[in-house]
Amino acid sequence: MRLWPLSALPEIVPGDDLAGMVADRARAEGVVPGDILMVAHKVVSKAEGRVVALADVEPGTAARELAALTGKEPALCELILSESRRIVRRRNSTLICETHHGFVCANAAIDASNARPGTVILLPRDPDASARRLQARISAAVGGRVGVIITDTHGRAFRRGLVNIAIGIAAFDAVIDHRGGQDMFGRTLVATDQAIGDELAAASGLYMGKDSGTPAVVASGVPTRPAPGRAGELVRRPEHDLFRT
Amino acid sequence: MRLWPLSALPEIVPGDDLAGMVADRARAEGVVPGDILMVAHKVVSKAEGRVVALADVEPGTAARELAALTGKEPALCELILSESRRIVRRRNSTLICETHHGFVCANAAIDASNARPGTVILLPRDPDASARRLQARISAAVGGRVGVIITDTHGRAFRRGLVNIAIGIAAFDAVIDHRGGQDMFGRTLVATDQAIGDELAAASGLYMGKDSGTPAVVASGVPTRPAPGRAGELVRRPEHDLFRT
Repeated sequence: MRLWPLSALPEIVPGDDLAGMVADRARAEGVVPGDILMVAHKVVSKAEGRVVALADVEPGTAARELAALTGKEPALCELILSESRRIVRRRNSTLICETHHGFVCANAAIDASNARPGTVILLPRDPDASARRLQARISAAVGGRVGVIITDTHGRAFRRGLVNIAIGIAAFDAVIDHRGGQDMFGRTLVATDQAIGDELAAASGLYMGKDSGTPAVVASGVPTRPAPGRAGELVRRPEHDLFRT
Repeated sequence: MRLWPLSALPEIVPGDDLAGMVADRARAEGVVPGDILMVAHKVVSKAEGRVVALADVEPGTAARELAALTGKEPALCELILSESRRIVRRRNSTLICETHHGFVCANAAIDASNARPGTVILLPRDPDASARRLQARISAAVGGRVGVIITDTHGRAFRRGLVNIAIGIAAFDAVIDHRGGQDMFGRTLVATDQAIGDELAAASGLYMGKDSGTPAVVASGVPTRPAPGRAGELVRRPEHDLFRT
């Protein structure tokens, strides 16, 4: 397997044809059918206009209360609340939220880094749909199926440090179900769901440093089974989750 | 960056010179200084004799009570309790434990897959020390620093599916601290710890399927800074963890 970055993109602004830009690079730089392309959500969010100037946000009562508790700007708290189903944990300035997509992460994944001063970047509204749109254009450009992952960088319970995870997926299964397979002693495996979407996303983090201008990374030589794909498969159902509540 | 598997190992039994076997393959198959070698903990545990026959375990009172609650074998419950600092969550047959190393995972990471029938495999007692021993032999064999990661396959809070994480590390820093770096608008980054040890471990999972005989995977072309290294850096300190209690 080979992991390699596409060349840098210009700064993306709302309305940019990101899919076209990535598709052109993919074809010119040697992406082939069967490759998987990982794209940082920030460029997707920017192209989709999911950038908000804090000065344009009118914080409500709940946001003002949250701002007082956390020391965060009231406008940012308003956005965090509007992007969240609920706050899962709070301690001092740390807010762990469940987004409307079901992702559990700090500040509902709203981030100011690599955003113009005074603005913040939200997640795409429907990252799987964003992945499908990219996938269609890139696959057409290279003449065959290219899988797409839209990534974000999240903290984790129990583990220090950030890793990239898959928030949107198109054209392959996010989870490989090994049930029915056998171990080396011929015993049937009971429950081993391999989170291949997150494995690939994590690998892309090796190139997508916070300060780097590398928003698109290619994995070549990873066999995947063609499927519609959906990063939602990687969200543990609340009733199976011992830590969400 | 290139990710590639070392050739398969024979079945490992207690007392085997695993470091010698891996070092020989590393030299013969083209590992060079600067590479990172990921090794599945199962072969390390087997070589270190961390394999237990359940018939040899005498379950105590607490283990019998836990067995009644979970439906697991009392001998297995005895081992889970002896490998754990504490049980973090329990629901039906699911037990999430904090191991003596600080890892939070199902059943204290005790696993029967790829173990001889009637036996289970425990984690190495000190995976960082195991990584250092492997590292010394491999680096000597190839004539320069080769980083080592010992991996295990864990479930996660909030996310479905298993990923490989780093439980032992030698010869490079498990976390890259980007604080003081700048984003694309020249703003100083505040807190971005990149968990490079876990990114690499997750990537190795693309080759280490549960049913595969590939216990060693090489990453070539990943720049790392020489350092003693320690997977303990990837364990979030309990006082900074909102989900451990």
